[in-house]
Amino acid sequence: MNTPPKADRIEQVAFGFMASKVLFCAIEFGVFTELAKGPLRAEEIQARLKLHRRSIHDFLDTLVALGMLEHNGEWYSNSSDTDFYLDRNKPTYIGGFFEFWNAREYPIFGSLGEGLTTGKPQNEIKTGTERLEFEALYATPERLRVFLRGMTGHSLPSAMAIAQKFPWSKYKSFADIGPAEGCLPVQVALANPHLTGEGFDLPTVGPVFEEYVASFGLRDRIRFRAGNFFTDPLPAADVLVMGMILHDWNLETKRQLLTKAFDALPKGGALIVYEHLIDDGRRKNVAGLLMSLIMLLETQGGFDYTGADCCGWMHDAGFSETYVEELTGIESMVVGIK
Amino acid sequence: MNTPPKADRIEQVAFGFMASKVLFCAIEFGVFTELAKGPLRAEEIQARLKLHRRSIHDFLDTLVALGMLEHNGEWYSNSSDTDFYLDRNKPTYIGGFFEFWNAREYPIFGSLGEGLTTGKPQNEIKTGTERLEFEALYATPERLRVFLRGMTGHSLPSAMAIAQKFPWSKYKSFADIGPAEGCLPVQVALANPHLTGEGFDLPTVGPVFEEYVASFGLRDRIRFRAGNFFTDPLPAADVLVMGMILHDWNLETKRQLLTKAFDALPKGGALIVYEHLIDDGRRKNVAGLLMSLIMLLETQGGFDYTGADCCGWMHDAGFSETYVEELTGIESMVVGIK
Repeated sequence: MNTPPKADRIEQVAFGFMASKVLFCAIEFGVFTELAKGPLRAEEIQARLKLHRRSIHDFLDTLVALGMLEHNGEWYSNSSDTDFYLDRNKPTYIGGFFEFWNAREYPIFGSLGEGLTTGKPQNEIKTGTERLEFEALYATPERLRVFLRGMTGHSLPSAMAIAQKFPWSKYKSFADIGPAEGCLPVQVALANPHLTGEGFDLPTVGPVFEEYVASFGLRDRIRFRAGNFFTDPLPAADVLVMGMILHDWNLETKRQLLTKAFDALPKGGALIVYEHLIDDGRRKNVAGLLMSLIMLLETQGGFDYTGADCCGWMHDAGFSETYVEELTGIESMVVGIK
Repeated sequence: MNTPPKADRIEQVAFGFMASKVLFCAIEFGVFTELAKGPLRAEEIQARLKLHRRSIHDFLDTLVALGMLEHNGEWYSNSSDTDFYLDRNKPTYIGGFFEFWNAREYPIFGSLGEGLTTGKPQNEIKTGTERLEFEALYATPERLRVFLRGMTGHSLPSAMAIAQKFPWSKYKSFADIGPAEGCLPVQVALANPHLTGEGFDLPTVGPVFEEYVASFGLRDRIRFRAGNFFTDPLPAADVLVMGMILHDWNLETKRQLLTKAFDALPKGGALIVYEHLIDDGRRKNVAGLLMSLIMLLETQGGFDYTGADCCGWMHDAGFSETYVEELTGIESMVVGIK
């Protein structure tokens, strides 16, 4: 009892939900969008965003302490990463992902205990209002748009890394399977002018995809192809990409999709899978493990996995060569060569 | 665009709510209590805690990645800090605080945005079912007990540090103002056999306090005194303690309580205030700033503050000497000498 261990690590994890919520509110209020125009005093931020004066300093100073803002004298400004990723007026905005989490995953995670006890999803599937994955998310044009925009926020850091790190010079065409708005095709096409690409998704996604691609002036090199990756053949292309797709499904379906990709590729073609991969030892990448718990709460059999898991399934599907490469601190890609 | 900044820091903050919830579920299920008896395999933990097998590995491995469990071969075991603080069978259990947060603060923090916009509490005060702070928390014997047990979890790390770090040998008696179960009086009395102490709280707290103190065999040295610190005089003692009390109230009430403590102390007597103090620069101690946002959501005028703020108020109240000393990584005490 004379030298008790510190409770700091426990308390830091326990305080995390409040830190997340402060960040989510700042994104929703447009704090980073406003500060991208230039530094402001607390009172100016409060007035522009119509916040109450009671807690404005606590709110902004929490963002400073979390490294999301800088504070010099009276002036608050964005940090370099929040300026790049959380300003709504930049094409690199990823806040849509966190708007989606704030609206949907924060309350759904309130039922994690029930999910762990029953093994069952805690979303609309539980209440019986929807039977299938994604049915609820695609139910109205507005919900569809919020989800697809969220997925752009989810994919952008990895999409930018894949556009740079994958040896695209060896290939001429690619297709992204389940591209949402088209974040990855756009980043790959921007960085590699010799490529043409396709986005393959449900018909309802088409107009949102085409609008997004057109906003980058890429309609001549990126096309939308309507289809269902369970019932239709996958597009023929030198490189196929599946980002945050496999983790939505159970092992049997994962294997089925990998086999389908293998069959669609030409000899020498490549499949890129990218996710918040769990580290092979399953003891480091918190983000990958937490994503897998989102899959518990949102899907009937989905789960995240390690790079070694995915390489094994790819070999079983016929791929002759596989490798894993880190993309961002928390996401990686698995590449399979036919 | 060639070397975009990393999004890792943003994503780490954004993932925090899920990490908190995993820890809270582990505490509620009794994972740490079970593992305090000895290491177990995943399947054994699942069976003993009646969890579903679907996500048991993801759940446990997330706790490993967060540093809350260790994993060797097939065996999971507690880390030294979770074994000490999160085993329900130990008197050093602080999990009650996180059980309270899980049940109450996680959903209340869902309304942070409305709190920041209106400056108004988002608890029962908002819905009009209760008019005053603490009325809801004390409304039934069960809610009272959950809250008071939670406060023990909140206070224990600081109480153990105060019992060691404050120069108790100079004093003979102390009184804790708003002691809840009596966590601080117990720790101070255990470490300093020459002291006698009192706990001063609302009458309804008495039976819970006396039961807790008796469980440590300290009824002869620690007594309960029923009273209201707004309407009754404070106890006479050489040292008065206020832990997580001042932050509940607005500035005027904070000053009123400090003056009342000054008046009650003998010359040479000391007041100890302990809280998640915000650092003087308001740019480091995330925990203190987040506690202040809890005060927004739970009280009508409460807020957390820096050590410099508190020293200033103490000097204004008449204290001749003040100092700040760190207790744990995230909590500190402010001492005022009359």
